[in-house]
Amino acid sequence: MSEMVHRIQDIICDELKKIDGVNYREDNWERDEGGGGRSRVFSNGKVFEKAGVNVSVVHGTLSKQAAENMGGGHELQGSDLDFFATGISLVLHPHNPMAPTVHANYRYFERGKGKKNGSWWFGGGADLTPSYLFEEDAIHFHSTLKDVCDRHEVANYDSYKKWCDDYFFIKHRDERRGVGGIFFDDLNGGSKEECYSFVADAASCFLDSYLPILDKRKDMDFSEENKEWQQIRRGRYVEFNLVYDRGTTFGLTTNGRIESILMSLPLTSRWEYCHEVPSGSREDNLLRVLREPVNWLELE
Amino acid sequence: MSEMVHRIQDIICDELKKIDGVNYREDNWERDEGGGGRSRVFSNGKVFEKAGVNVSVVHGTLSKQAAENMGGGHELQGSDLDFFATGISLVLHPHNPMAPTVHANYRYFERGKGKKNGSWWFGGGADLTPSYLFEEDAIHFHSTLKDVCDRHEVANYDSYKKWCDDYFFIKHRDERRGVGGIFFDDLNGGSKEECYSFVADAASCFLDSYLPILDKRKDMDFSEENKEWQQIRRGRYVEFNLVYDRGTTFGLTTNGRIESILMSLPLTSRWEYCHEVPSGSREDNLLRVLREPVNWLELE
Repeated sequence: MSEMVHRIQDIICDELKKIDGVNYREDNWERDEGGGGRSRVFSNGKVFEKAGVNVSVVHGTLSKQAAENMGGGHELQGSDLDFFATGISLVLHPHNPMAPTVHANYRYFERGKGKKNGSWWFGGGADLTPSYLFEEDAIHFHSTLKDVCDRHEVANYDSYKKWCDDYFFIKHRDERRGVGGIFFDDLNGGSKEECYSFVADAASCFLDSYLPILDKRKDMDFSEENKEWQQIRRGRYVEFNLVYDRGTTFGLTTNGRIESILMSLPLTSRWEYCHEVPSGSREDNLLRVLREPVNWLELE
Repeated sequence: MSEMVHRIQDIICDELKKIDGVNYREDNWERDEGGGGRSRVFSNGKVFEKAGVNVSVVHGTLSKQAAENMGGGHELQGSDLDFFATGISLVLHPHNPMAPTVHANYRYFERGKGKKNGSWWFGGGADLTPSYLFEEDAIHFHSTLKDVCDRHEVANYDSYKKWCDDYFFIKHRDERRGVGGIFFDDLNGGSKEECYSFVADAASCFLDSYLPILDKRKDMDFSEENKEWQQIRRGRYVEFNLVYDRGTTFGLTTNGRIESILMSLPLTSRWEYCHEVPSGSREDNLLRVLREPVNWLELE
């Protein structure tokens, strides 16, 4: 898994480098308690306002509290508080308001030696956050993810799609962060090999799920008003990540590498008091699908 | 208290209207569970990017959970889960990066009929958040607040100053939000009249504590780099409010009026990956005092 996430990071970053016309900044960091990571961030390139791709391989001993907070049905494995975790996490924020932000994350977690039932699991997913809705983009993104799930018995697109809609929910706004994708956690059905094979396949498909969308949208015309709406949507992205996202809040409270955790935040964002959109506008069309999730693949 | 906070809201908003050259938008809102509020927000005026002054008077019945979470040594008063709360809360974000953001909040809370010991208390404070440090501004702000505290036996500037530094702490950045001020909660020493008299005096002094500073800074020259640094500091303001501020997180999780709660967020903000400031620069000077709080009144 650790070898795979580094390889995928290389492949994705090489591609982004070509598209963005700038190189990434790389930071190799170590964690006092064991392990470390490799963060790569693109800033103010041709296409992306900010884009980060991070991998990490960490190990150590969990506090009893942290082990309990982990949840997900992983009861304390006796005194096995040792853990190992590795994963890839990326967030790409394009300049053009017609081009959606995208996030993906694939991770493996192990308690003790990872031999006992329930002492290892995979998690992850990918989700798309447009400021302007293009149904064909949502359909393409979801159908790539469904195809991956369908290739693996351990995965289930329908339930991962719903999990994603439920997870990326900004409760105080009664709206989702974006048009969804897949989200899964505690994956340990079947053998470890089967689970890994699904996760590796999903990670490999990231560029296929996103680049065709980016390619269509990155050079589209847009107005000042479109840009302002994008900035307001970025504000909502910040609200979700700082208030609800478990990875972010866990990282902030456990002394993680702050810059790698907050690399997911957009470069700029905006909060307007009581911002309203005209009924039937393109902005309103987006809000409708954020309030009532759509089964994109039934629209095909 | 409720009458006082409405009067102070009027006085402050009248003054801001003159300074800002625009009128506020007023929203009167009701709370399903009882009571309501009056929010006034200035947007894109001459001086303020965004400025909100909110009062509320709410009552109802607390859930047992909410009553317990209240903390502060207020043990459950038998079955007295009825509550009454009123207060004023304001945040002013000027355009000019040399002019500091300011926040103030004064509130009264009562459980049951507010007759028993510990069943009523006051809270509040005021704090200043500059992007560029002018020591004389911090000194003026603190000395106005110290003068208020000194006029009232129930208040103690030194401990409220420290409480403020401790409260407005962005733990994951190891820095404070700004140069402090005062913060207090659970104030119920002395009589209710004495406590009220202090809180009313503090609220009345708000304009004296801030306007002379604003007046000196609002028309100063600044560069693009100054504006960008202000935007980065605003990002930290957002981090504090969404991750740590009890009022905000309480409001978001208890179905408060979202627009009134998030009116404290700046209009725009910025997150740059691994942003660094040159040692000895003006930006660095600010960071130093955010990391190591200063006793401003010893500098006089």
